[in-house]
Amino acid sequence: MHTYVSTDHLRFLIHEYLKAPAQIENYEKFEGYDAEAFDMSIDAAEQIGNQHLYPAYRIMDQEKATCENGVVWTHPLLAEGLKAMTEGGWLSSTAPAEMGGSQMPLVLHNTASLIFMGANANIAAYAFLTVGAANLILAYGSDELKALYLPEMYSGRFQGTMALTEPQAGSSLTDITASATPIGDGQYKITGQKIYISGGDHASVDNVVHLMLARVDGAPAGTKGISLFVVPKHRPKGKTASEGWEPNDVITAGIYGKMGQKGYVAAHLMYGENENTIGYLVGEEHRGLSYMFSMMNEARIGTGIMATGCASGAYYASLKYAFERPQGRHPSQKDPNQPQIPIVEHADVRRMLLLQKAVVEGSQALLLEASLWEDIALNDSSDAAKQSHLMLELLTPIIKTFPSEYGTMAVMNGMQVLGGAGYCNDFPLEQYYRDIRVNAIYEGTTGIHGMDLMGRKILMGKGDVLKALSARMQADIEACAKTFPDEANALGASAVALAKTTTKLMGILQKDGPEAYLADASLYLEYFGLVVISWHWLRMANVASEKLANGGKLSKKFYESNILTMQYFIEYELPKTRGLHARLNSDKRVTLDASPELLV
Amino acid sequence: MHTYVSTDHLRFLIHEYLKAPAQIENYEKFEGYDAEAFDMSIDAAEQIGNQHLYPAYRIMDQEKATCENGVVWTHPLLAEGLKAMTEGGWLSSTAPAEMGGSQMPLVLHNTASLIFMGANANIAAYAFLTVGAANLILAYGSDELKALYLPEMYSGRFQGTMALTEPQAGSSLTDITASATPIGDGQYKITGQKIYISGGDHASVDNVVHLMLARVDGAPAGTKGISLFVVPKHRPKGKTASEGWEPNDVITAGIYGKMGQKGYVAAHLMYGENENTIGYLVGEEHRGLSYMFSMMNEARIGTGIMATGCASGAYYASLKYAFERPQGRHPSQKDPNQPQIPIVEHADVRRMLLLQKAVVEGSQALLLEASLWEDIALNDSSDAAKQSHLMLELLTPIIKTFPSEYGTMAVMNGMQVLGGAGYCNDFPLEQYYRDIRVNAIYEGTTGIHGMDLMGRKILMGKGDVLKALSARMQADIEACAKTFPDEANALGASAVALAKTTTKLMGILQKDGPEAYLADASLYLEYFGLVVISWHWLRMANVASEKLANGGKLSKKFYESNILTMQYFIEYELPKTRGLHARLNSDKRVTLDASPELLV
Repeated sequence: MHTYVSTDHLRFLIHEYLKAPAQIENYEKFEGYDAEAFDMSIDAAEQIGNQHLYPAYRIMDQEKATCENGVVWTHPLLAEGLKAMTEGGWLSSTAPAEMGGSQMPLVLHNTASLIFMGANANIAAYAFLTVGAANLILAYGSDELKALYLPEMYSGRFQGTMALTEPQAGSSLTDITASATPIGDGQYKITGQKIYISGGDHASVDNVVHLMLARVDGAPAGTKGISLFVVPKHRPKGKTASEGWEPNDVITAGIYGKMGQKGYVAAHLMYGENENTIGYLVGEEHRGLSYMFSMMNEARIGTGIMATGCASGAYYASLKYAFERPQGRHPSQKDPNQPQIPIVEHADVRRMLLLQKAVVEGSQALLLEASLWEDIALNDSSDAAKQSHLMLELLTPIIKTFPSEYGTMAVMNGMQVLGGAGYCNDFPLEQYYRDIRVNAIYEGTTGIHGMDLMGRKILMGKGDVLKALSARMQADIEACAKTFPDEANALGASAVALAKTTTKLMGILQKDGPEAYLADASLYLEYFGLVVISWHWLRMANVASEKLANGGKLSKKFYESNILTMQYFIEYELPKTRGLHARLNSDKRVTLDASPELLV
Repeated sequence: MHTYVSTDHLRFLIHEYLKAPAQIENYEKFEGYDAEAFDMSIDAAEQIGNQHLYPAYRIMDQEKATCENGVVWTHPLLAEGLKAMTEGGWLSSTAPAEMGGSQMPLVLHNTASLIFMGANANIAAYAFLTVGAANLILAYGSDELKALYLPEMYSGRFQGTMALTEPQAGSSLTDITASATPIGDGQYKITGQKIYISGGDHASVDNVVHLMLARVDGAPAGTKGISLFVVPKHRPKGKTASEGWEPNDVITAGIYGKMGQKGYVAAHLMYGENENTIGYLVGEEHRGLSYMFSMMNEARIGTGIMATGCASGAYYASLKYAFERPQGRHPSQKDPNQPQIPIVEHADVRRMLLLQKAVVEGSQALLLEASLWEDIALNDSSDAAKQSHLMLELLTPIIKTFPSEYGTMAVMNGMQVLGGAGYCNDFPLEQYYRDIRVNAIYEGTTGIHGMDLMGRKILMGKGDVLKALSARMQADIEACAKTFPDEANALGASAVALAKTTTKLMGILQKDGPEAYLADASLYLEYFGLVVISWHWLRMANVASEKLANGGKLSKKFYESNILTMQYFIEYELPKTRGLHARLNSDKRVTLDASPELLV
């Protein structure tokens, strides 16, 4: 039994479901990444997870990060875990060779991320942030910024962050007010506050590099006046690192008392309190948000991976308990002298286990296909690049939200498998329950992603991207119809119903405008997500079925389990679209027309 | 705006929805409980909630209960809160006058409980346990036990508990092994361990009285060999309290590190480690479980109240935030120079608020009608007593589970309204989120209640009780059809669909036996719950509509809000039955036939 993630399932996805090594073999950048290289990297990641990350998960919660007098203490196991990840090359894995990186395909990097986040999302998240911030500098920073910061970030000596949120600007980035006054040479005096900055400060690193949004004096209002800066905690004294670093007037006002992820700090930061914070412009003025958003797909996949990792850890913890814990007897067994049976023998417990497995492995499929799309988008020279990019754009709200929302529900069921033990800290379920919840808030709340899906994504190319997805689904459903006729029919019907719903809603957009169109965007997002994950499940089971017949890399039991889990998802989760369909196709505008004053 | 509970809604339920004072006015026991007395009691309860309970809620979490060397420390505000409740007469409110009680109707007592649990479920739960344990002694204990313990319990000097769970016997009470050896005079030497004993020990009281299940030597296996004992932490030296009390060898091995309800201890207790624990038999030998279960309706209503209280507190905390927090603009407003709007202006936020309100107020209606049924069952001399008792029996799984499961979902939405602030401890949402989760585990998990509903309750009287409920619903739906035709139709269709599902499932019971019949009992329970709560909402809105036309005790805004909330529930929550219906009417036996070895 796995402890926190099924590397069997990850290998299945890579080799048999996505055929990832073959898909990327013609891209020059990924030379050498053959099937064997994928396997070796997965082995290496698992070893780090087993040895350095998973053992620290509970401890970092129990001995949580603290802040005293502006100094943030994190558990020594964080530094140790980050060191293992750095030495394993995982902070620079996707970076170009000339920067000392391994030019790893994202699909492989994110397979490893699923392992790391499953083992310990608190440690892995710090690494994830540094990589994300480094990628921003790599893509848009000057050569000077790259030379100063990237070697330090790839080596784990500097922590990276994304500093967006302000007290008055959370979901509404339009309203950012942090200011930047030019002082020449690409440098600016920075003033402002940032809140909820994950990894925003901690003593396990030499420096913290904030990728920060602010407005240059005189910039236009709204998102068109936002610029991106590198604002380090310690700034270089000169032009190069060799001249040393000095404090940059970035003050940690405190860290937040979070319900979970207590090993992963979120800081409240003050910039320029003593008028001595310098920021270094990234790219051009006023284009900061577009730079930031170009990295958002990555960050949102990252959030999906974090949620999936958490749900995966919870699944294996509850599965172990279900096999070990004797309790009760079958309903037909009335003799109290018969021994109790392990709770996995109860159908309702199996339901709660299959639910978790289906959410976790369905999310993994979605996330890795999305990662592969990104590899294709960035490396292919044919039309496939554009198609992959658009598909990724379209599905990003699902990629971020399904693992976060259904992952939370999955962990809730994992806790229920343990009963009272799940609520107490003798078992890790209560930590997974607290930890996973934040993912529906990180990187845009579920409501924001619902509006993104309906307000932007399905409208892309006048609906052509959505049509392309529908065509792919339809082809896949037909391809599976022979092997799984009932399930293919069920998904086919749901996909048609979703398409009709979309048409109906677009009519509302025309007739009644965006407020009416977007009122139930969160529900539409859930509907869409259930169909997309069912699509993955049907395709996975079809591969499993073929491997059962003709032989594959994994065991008969593995493939049978995969097919069973598909049946669970189609039978128990996909039908939830029926309720969503009923609501989304109703003409009653309950929440939209509700006067706030009636909320009492 | 209310802070943690709407006493307006409680008054509406009491006076206009249930007409409780009129319903109980002919019962001798409740003499004097007229409408004015109800209102005065609600006022008094609210004052205690405001002054002594709500202000302690966060503090008791932050300065949680601890155990050192077998001594359990609880926050001084617990003792203060219990003192206020005791002095207000709330520990003895339902007790007979001859015991110093107020003979209060349960429907009024539980109205107050909804206030107390909304203000601070951690304090109110201690009181709730003492009352429950005292009721058990009152109903089945000897005069000696009553004289010794009841005055101390009603005065709050002794804490009561229910000591059922053992390490090997959680959901399966059949497997209890704590033992009792008779030593004459109704006394027994007790040996065994009990775990997760809420309120099991704390220093705010002089003594703790465990209502404990154990087996007398030689008792038959299974539930027919379980007896009930009073096992105090300190036992009387003689026959009366005047001779003083001495230690009874009840050792607190520790308290559990719970995810929530950190002010409310759950203890691990060892009895007879030094062979010196004496228990006092309650009633007859081997009939302990039936005594305990006769109080279970009360305890399960209590759990529903606790969950509802928590969800109510969360609703008002998120409502306040939604009115105060400016963020974003309407989708059609593209000008960033326009001020941000309070988030309550966003339809998706109103959806999350209405969801909470609908769950909380729907649960309150269910709980208070159930309480009224108990009053009628215990006091009426006509057939109404039996009918009320059976209706209560039938709906107890819903009464316990709907507030627990949907309440948890409601709080999850409350947290989402606050975004990042909801995840941090500057606001109470994160505590509500942790606290409410245990209710789906307390007093029988959701899975156990699903099996209770299908395996016992709907089969009562060969299905006659279920038919009686259906007839009531049908009559109510017809009565509302003129005012709310669409909603009455929707509920009518769901009720018919549920009845068809029941028939189909009973066919499976006949054909395939109990395992197949019960496999998806948790889903059936959810389905049933959605229909029952919709039924309450439709009836409530019908009353509100009538009061809008003819005038009532509450404001126009109140009644309009009630009708809006009904519309929300029927439009957004009731349709969830469609997915449940599809699954429950499918012939695929996914979880039932799943071999445990395929869970990998």
